Amino acid sequence: MRRAIQLALLAEGRTSPNPLVGAVVLDSSGSLVGEGFHTGAGNPHAEIEALAKAGEKSVNGTIVVTLEPCCHEGLTPPCTEALIKAGLKRVVVGMVDPDPRVSGNGISRLKDSGLEVIEGVLQQECESINREFSFRVRHGRPWGILKWAMSLDGRIGLPNGCSKWISNSFSRDSVHKIRSKCDAVIVGGGTVRLDNPLLTSRGKANSEPLRVVFSRTLDLPESSKLWDTKIAKTLIAYGPDGNESFFSDLPDGPEKLRLNSDDPSELLSSLSKKGCNKILWECGPLLATSAIEANCVQELVVFVAPKLLGGETAMCPLNSFGFESIDSTYKLQHSFLERKGEDLSWSLLF
Amino acid sequence: MRRAIQLALLAEGRTSPNPLVGAVVLDSSGSLVGEGFHTGAGNPHAEIEALAKAGEKSVNGTIVVTLEPCCHEGLTPPCTEALIKAGLKRVVVGMVDPDPRVSGNGISRLKDSGLEVIEGVLQQECESINREFSFRVRHGRPWGILKWAMSLDGRIGLPNGCSKWISNSFSRDSVHKIRSKCDAVIVGGGTVRLDNPLLTSRGKANSEPLRVVFSRTLDLPESSKLWDTKIAKTLIAYGPDGNESFFSDLPDGPEKLRLNSDDPSELLSSLSKKGCNKILWECGPLLATSAIEANCVQELVVFVAPKLLGGETAMCPLNSFGFESIDSTYKLQHSFLERKGEDLSWSLLF
Repeated sequence: MRRAIQLALLAEGRTSPNPLVGAVVLDSSGSLVGEGFHTGAGNPHAEIEALAKAGEKSVNGTIVVTLEPCCHEGLTPPCTEALIKAGLKRVVVGMVDPDPRVSGNGISRLKDSGLEVIEGVLQQECESINREFSFRVRHGRPWGILKWAMSLDGRIGLPNGCSKWISNSFSRDSVHKIRSKCDAVIVGGGTVRLDNPLLTSRGKANSEPLRVVFSRTLDLPESSKLWDTKIAKTLIAYGPDGNESFFSDLPDGPEKLRLNSDDPSELLSSLSKKGCNKILWECGPLLATSAIEANCVQELVVFVAPKLLGGETAMCPLNSFGFESIDSTYKLQHSFLERKGEDLSWSLLF
Repeated sequence: MRRAIQLALLAEGRTSPNPLVGAVVLDSSGSLVGEGFHTGAGNPHAEIEALAKAGEKSVNGTIVVTLEPCCHEGLTPPCTEALIKAGLKRVVVGMVDPDPRVSGNGISRLKDSGLEVIEGVLQQECESINREFSFRVRHGRPWGILKWAMSLDGRIGLPNGCSKWISNSFSRDSVHKIRSKCDAVIVGGGTVRLDNPLLTSRGKANSEPLRVVFSRTLDLPESSKLWDTKIAKTLIAYGPDGNESFFSDLPDGPEKLRLNSDDPSELLSSLSKKGCNKILWECGPLLATSAIEANCVQELVVFVAPKLLGGETAMCPLNSFGFESIDSTYKLQHSFLERKGEDLSWSLLF
């Protein structure tokens, strides 16, 4: 199973909306005769890849697979039938597939066909590599990461709006890496107006994440790096108050998405349907605050630079939640902490 | 010299305004025959303690001392004369005493009397244990530490002023330890009004640091834990706008200090004259900002709790410095980083 997990991780960041899956086939004497992993939606599943390598040697053998084999017709035929047809004797499964179309039905189908099924092997490890996929399947919206870079005194910009650069190049490189593991990066209109960001992984991703501008009013600049969709796709999502006349001057390229509300969770449901397992919020205080309040943030990455910016009216990472006592504030769980040159990077879970 | 440094550190936090000093005496064959360290102002210097232990065995011997022996009459007679009288052959010195009354004159006096002097042994280590003493002697004001506890989103309190407790008990314990190493703890009037703090080391110090209230207006509450000076002394320092009628209702106990200005450096000069080598700023944004601007902060300790407080108007650690670009902001040097339970504690130098 450890080898199957290794195989699964080879496709990290490329399989959405599908999960990461790895599989290993052993022959009747226990020798490894086939390996495979899922490389992306529409491509063969891990089991099919591994069985293809094993060929005739899978008869009376064992397949070890990180995720329960599917039993439904998707973009590819059900894996359960391929396993049965291959003459396997035993199936070792890491975790049950949370997808309601599978969710134990794959295992039942195999058992009903006389195969021995061993479940829950390295279950925690198998679940952890598909945390975002499982979250999306269970909640109908992608796993949300919120990131900001601030000074020691908790400022994300000077009173005049200047924020280039609070964090150092190691931290910014690390943001590019986070983007490369996400399916979409979301900013609000304020960030487009103030920072004119590019929002790419700077080539770290095989395919750049979708860049999403979430604007209530569509009060957006005519010219922006995000309107050029040659390097990466852009989606402009807007609520009922969006002034669509903005689109008349917009160059071709960005996709438009009209939503029924300004609720961040409606946006995330739409992104989930577009196949996003994991998204990154790179927005200002207003949108960040409402994303947290709408449970659209599961993970926080804070970069702290050893600088003091000051500023009475200046820019803090979040707006008011209306808390009246410290007991009622959000409490996060430490995940990991790293030095990035002189900066700190602290990741936490909600 | 390593042993002499160990000895010196035995009196950490108790010698102000004097430095930490340790001394070791070796006889003519190089065997250790005496040890001593300075235990506080008015008590014998380290050299005298060590020579007393060595007695006759110091003749033709060596003394190893972390700091240049004094050559002036202070609360105790000059050490140079005692060293000469003891019949020593050699003096090994860690660092030159920055006190202008000594500053090489001690070493010259010894050399002139025919003793061999070896200087600069483990100089960096010797300087580092007396960083605050040297700073005070060179600059005429104590080494300043500024401390605050904030949430992940850089807030030191909720919009309603509530801040108990942002940091956890490990962090607060660590603040008590910092206080125990300081000669004074300074707050502004706002902190007295809002938090009514006790400002002691909770028994961690042999003698509690002086608690200083620095108030521009003397608009202070009639009742405060700080007005009770049974546990620790309190000093109320105020500028020319201080309304002294406040004192008529104040219980006996707190000392009063009228200053010519609201400049934090005038307060620190006064505290230097009172024998403070090291002070701790535990104040709100207004005073913290002016202390930084007046170069009265050399070290910053930030506790970061994994909480999100939010708050549009709410309390940030610092006010405006009027910076117009990130390049002009304060940049600090990492000193050390620790986990305190779920909190982080980050110490940095200006």
